[in-house]
Amino acid sequence: MNKIFRINMTDLTVKIEPVPEAWAGLGGRALTSTIIAAEVPPTCHALGPNNKLVFAPGLLSGTAASNAGRFSCGSKSPLTGGIKECSAGGTSSRIIARLGIKAIIVEGQPAGDTWYSLIVGKDGVEFHAETETLGMGTFEVVEKVTARLGEDFGVITLGQAGEHLMAISNISVKDPEGKIRSFGRGGLGAVMGSKKIKFIAVNPEGVANLPIVDNAKFKEANRTFTKTLQEHPVSGQGLKKYGTAVLVNIINEAGGLPTRNFTAGQCEHHDQISGEEMYDRIVARGGEPSHPCSPGCQIQCSQVYNDKDGKYLTSGFEYETLWALGADGMITDLDVCAEIDNVFDDLGVDSIETPVMFAVAMEAGLLPWGDGKRMLEILHEDIAKGTPFGRMLGAGTAAVGRAYGLTRIPVVKNQAIPAYDPRAIKGIGVTYATTTMGADHTAGYAIATNILAVGGKVDPLSNDGQVELSRNLQIATAAVDSTGLCLFIAFPALDIPTCLPAVVDMLNARYGISLTLDDVVALGKHVLKVEHEFNLAAGLGPETDRLPEFFELEPLTPHNVTWDMNPKELASFWSF
Amino acid sequence: MNKIFRINMTDLTVKIEPVPEAWAGLGGRALTSTIIAAEVPPTCHALGPNNKLVFAPGLLSGTAASNAGRFSCGSKSPLTGGIKECSAGGTSSRIIARLGIKAIIVEGQPAGDTWYSLIVGKDGVEFHAETETLGMGTFEVVEKVTARLGEDFGVITLGQAGEHLMAISNISVKDPEGKIRSFGRGGLGAVMGSKKIKFIAVNPEGVANLPIVDNAKFKEANRTFTKTLQEHPVSGQGLKKYGTAVLVNIINEAGGLPTRNFTAGQCEHHDQISGEEMYDRIVARGGEPSHPCSPGCQIQCSQVYNDKDGKYLTSGFEYETLWALGADGMITDLDVCAEIDNVFDDLGVDSIETPVMFAVAMEAGLLPWGDGKRMLEILHEDIAKGTPFGRMLGAGTAAVGRAYGLTRIPVVKNQAIPAYDPRAIKGIGVTYATTTMGADHTAGYAIATNILAVGGKVDPLSNDGQVELSRNLQIATAAVDSTGLCLFIAFPALDIPTCLPAVVDMLNARYGISLTLDDVVALGKHVLKVEHEFNLAAGLGPETDRLPEFFELEPLTPHNVTWDMNPKELASFWSF
Repeated sequence: MNKIFRINMTDLTVKIEPVPEAWAGLGGRALTSTIIAAEVPPTCHALGPNNKLVFAPGLLSGTAASNAGRFSCGSKSPLTGGIKECSAGGTSSRIIARLGIKAIIVEGQPAGDTWYSLIVGKDGVEFHAETETLGMGTFEVVEKVTARLGEDFGVITLGQAGEHLMAISNISVKDPEGKIRSFGRGGLGAVMGSKKIKFIAVNPEGVANLPIVDNAKFKEANRTFTKTLQEHPVSGQGLKKYGTAVLVNIINEAGGLPTRNFTAGQCEHHDQISGEEMYDRIVARGGEPSHPCSPGCQIQCSQVYNDKDGKYLTSGFEYETLWALGADGMITDLDVCAEIDNVFDDLGVDSIETPVMFAVAMEAGLLPWGDGKRMLEILHEDIAKGTPFGRMLGAGTAAVGRAYGLTRIPVVKNQAIPAYDPRAIKGIGVTYATTTMGADHTAGYAIATNILAVGGKVDPLSNDGQVELSRNLQIATAAVDSTGLCLFIAFPALDIPTCLPAVVDMLNARYGISLTLDDVVALGKHVLKVEHEFNLAAGLGPETDRLPEFFELEPLTPHNVTWDMNPKELASFWSF
Repeated sequence: MNKIFRINMTDLTVKIEPVPEAWAGLGGRALTSTIIAAEVPPTCHALGPNNKLVFAPGLLSGTAASNAGRFSCGSKSPLTGGIKECSAGGTSSRIIARLGIKAIIVEGQPAGDTWYSLIVGKDGVEFHAETETLGMGTFEVVEKVTARLGEDFGVITLGQAGEHLMAISNISVKDPEGKIRSFGRGGLGAVMGSKKIKFIAVNPEGVANLPIVDNAKFKEANRTFTKTLQEHPVSGQGLKKYGTAVLVNIINEAGGLPTRNFTAGQCEHHDQISGEEMYDRIVARGGEPSHPCSPGCQIQCSQVYNDKDGKYLTSGFEYETLWALGADGMITDLDVCAEIDNVFDDLGVDSIETPVMFAVAMEAGLLPWGDGKRMLEILHEDIAKGTPFGRMLGAGTAAVGRAYGLTRIPVVKNQAIPAYDPRAIKGIGVTYATTTMGADHTAGYAIATNILAVGGKVDPLSNDGQVELSRNLQIATAAVDSTGLCLFIAFPALDIPTCLPAVVDMLNARYGISLTLDDVVALGKHVLKVEHEFNLAAGLGPETDRLPEFFELEPLTPHNVTWDMNPKELASFWSF
């Protein structure tokens, strides 16, 4: 991994550059955020020629390390106006890493109306004018590209939403089954669309095993690491059996399952949309309850969910999406939720932003509560086709709420708040408010310690200790996001003492270095600070590190709690 | 003017309070901004219960001073997210002042769905559940209220756009002819709508002449002041004959008339939409070229514009609206522009934000360039009725541009940039970027000195001296906006040495005080700083004091200039 591919879409050229010394120790999020902060003017228009899109495998991507198949995509977000990093699975990370490419930087934008497809290979990039796949959903694009180029190519593509430059659009990545994984949040699809790229195919020709400086040590560390993944009850059992949907009943029980656009903390029909119900249906219909999103995954929290007739309906059907459709939007039929999840993947839209936006649209009276059929119609007829109505919705949760003058708009920095109500689970509220990403549970998953008693226990209803908890988790997450490891390794990392040292050992064995745990923490801190500086320079000052006012004004059932964290205490987050 | 009316819409009560010592020397904008800054949490939701709406006549309102018939409305803007002050004419300012009311503060909001009308009288406020006028345009509301209460009542009302809580909505004020004047910008109509007030009627019963401490001195100063208004060629002749539309040809000649959504600086058909053409039509059709917006106006820049059959079409038809329709939106038919202007008044929408939004919508392909008929249809069928399409448009220029992923979105702090291209007229660019109001030409009208050679001459194409020019103008404007005087007194004030001292003399004679010119400048500075502090605390940091990136990237014909002011120089604006 000693090359940077710098792709210029203004003149359709590529430069293959050596890795600058300063970037040598970086990967994944650390690298994408460093490059964006160094090269993108913070106040530029996110869809203009000065924004860039960076793809970077993690420091352990491409190796035999368990769960290291993820990579990062970074940019300035057209949704939040700040820096953005998303992590995705799929097959491309491994290929890119094993071609020796440390990062792909896409810059500039073409002047005309022509769209392009790019083929990234070991020696360079081919630029092709693209017409065949324009207007297609992601599944069809993957099929076409596979037919055109071959089964083993990685595919990074847009659905219709990205072509329309919608803020709800994401970037889709082909997974091991030819299905879709996503760089989900912040409208990254619109950035790729603004550069007129329909897809990037990654040619596996010439992939090579990556050099491991101390192979024996690496294998030993990986064994230890893998064992901790299997031993921890969350990563080894809960997620494997029920997927992330295991959380529906848990969060409902905690009174933190935002229901009917955040007007209640428990949902009457939670049983009908639970992980347990999902598991039963999957098993009864010949689906797969456990399934990897990328090569080398040990947790297998994905699934294959079939319909009543045993036909494929969706996979990678996450708790947050299920929550947003089932509880926040009141759709009681799990099969309809699954069908919608699949359409989200196909159109290439953020499966958190989009359903949270729909719940706000329901509150505005644009469609009835719980009407999944109407939602499907709107997705197909308006969002896919980019009608004016579809464009209004495609601008995201905040845009729809503002167009209707609503005061209950669940966003931070313009990005939709996910599946955990911050009034009842204060730690996640700190993460939503302070993360550089806009509301994002993955940035510092306080649910672990507030609810799941992983890494100790901090009372979810008390403000005490939440800032420190969120800060520690955000620092650790920034480091994990730089390794290419799945974030769910955090569960054993927080509870089993041998886990994190094993990760550090793998890094040291891979590169012949001698990092300590402190170095890893320092890396996480550095990443957060780089991102924070970018956001400040982009205009996202401390006043944007807050939750929407309605959380302070409207008590949440059943605990009848509001968001009441002292603003100064919240602001102390950045004192590190 | 020794009373504050504090109206609470949560419990439908009013408190009549004495004027606090600290507010005694304030009026108009100085008072509204001081109250908003003191009482509204800067990060509150602008349409929630914590925002307030303040109406305040100026320090000279209600007296015999020429051109003192205006008043201010202040709030936190749902469009910009910052503080907002608008000035309007009409008859209410004079009545409120002569009832001895220094300010009306509207706070809270009702819980239910009932809308209200309020009758403000000398002894208190009546609250009535309102149904008859709901859904009506402003002209019909004024008719109904006049029929219900009497000819002499002041009326402050919303059109349909304010009822829909649209960010393009404004607050309308009955003028001396029963037509409409507006608190135009920043979505103030949505704030009044969020408090469920369809109209406020002001009962003139009990109006009294205001005490003048030194009547002889006041009269003498007013004579001197009035003479300067009549003597200056802009206020005494240009504006009287052609209205503000006199600027079409002047700004076109300067190459600063933004055309076709800011893609050119001159408009081919400028003759067809000029003030001269407007004058000819008005005279030929029996309209009135000169007409006051409020009692006591000497400038009379308004007009009555009739259609071909001599029937009333519109009045208060301003250059900025005409520009936005005719040049920015390419509508070549002046009569169609006049008809649209009248519909803007009727729906109660900002006649800058709305047509600039339409030009962006034209660029997005939502309607053909120059299609005024289609625009009228959308106004009647979508915006008035609040359809989803209408709501998208009603969210304003930036919202439409973002929904379509455009990069050429002419806004600052989310508010549409008016009729003067900052690439060709640098001074106004400084005002757009730095004013606390979001893009607003009236905040510091650098056109005067860049183009009209009023107050000296600063080369419009050079960056030299523009920051200082804009700063001085913004300070002076903040002071003028606090007096209740029309901003156009700035023309003689900048050129005729006796003008400003006469204004100061009137203030001193009215209140028996001894202000100097320095005190007035200090007041202006103080107002700007109070507003700026509010904005900083609301999250509008220095990074938002800038023009959109496309002005830096796209040269403007005919001068082929970009916006190239050094960001540090621009930031030096606030060093005072």
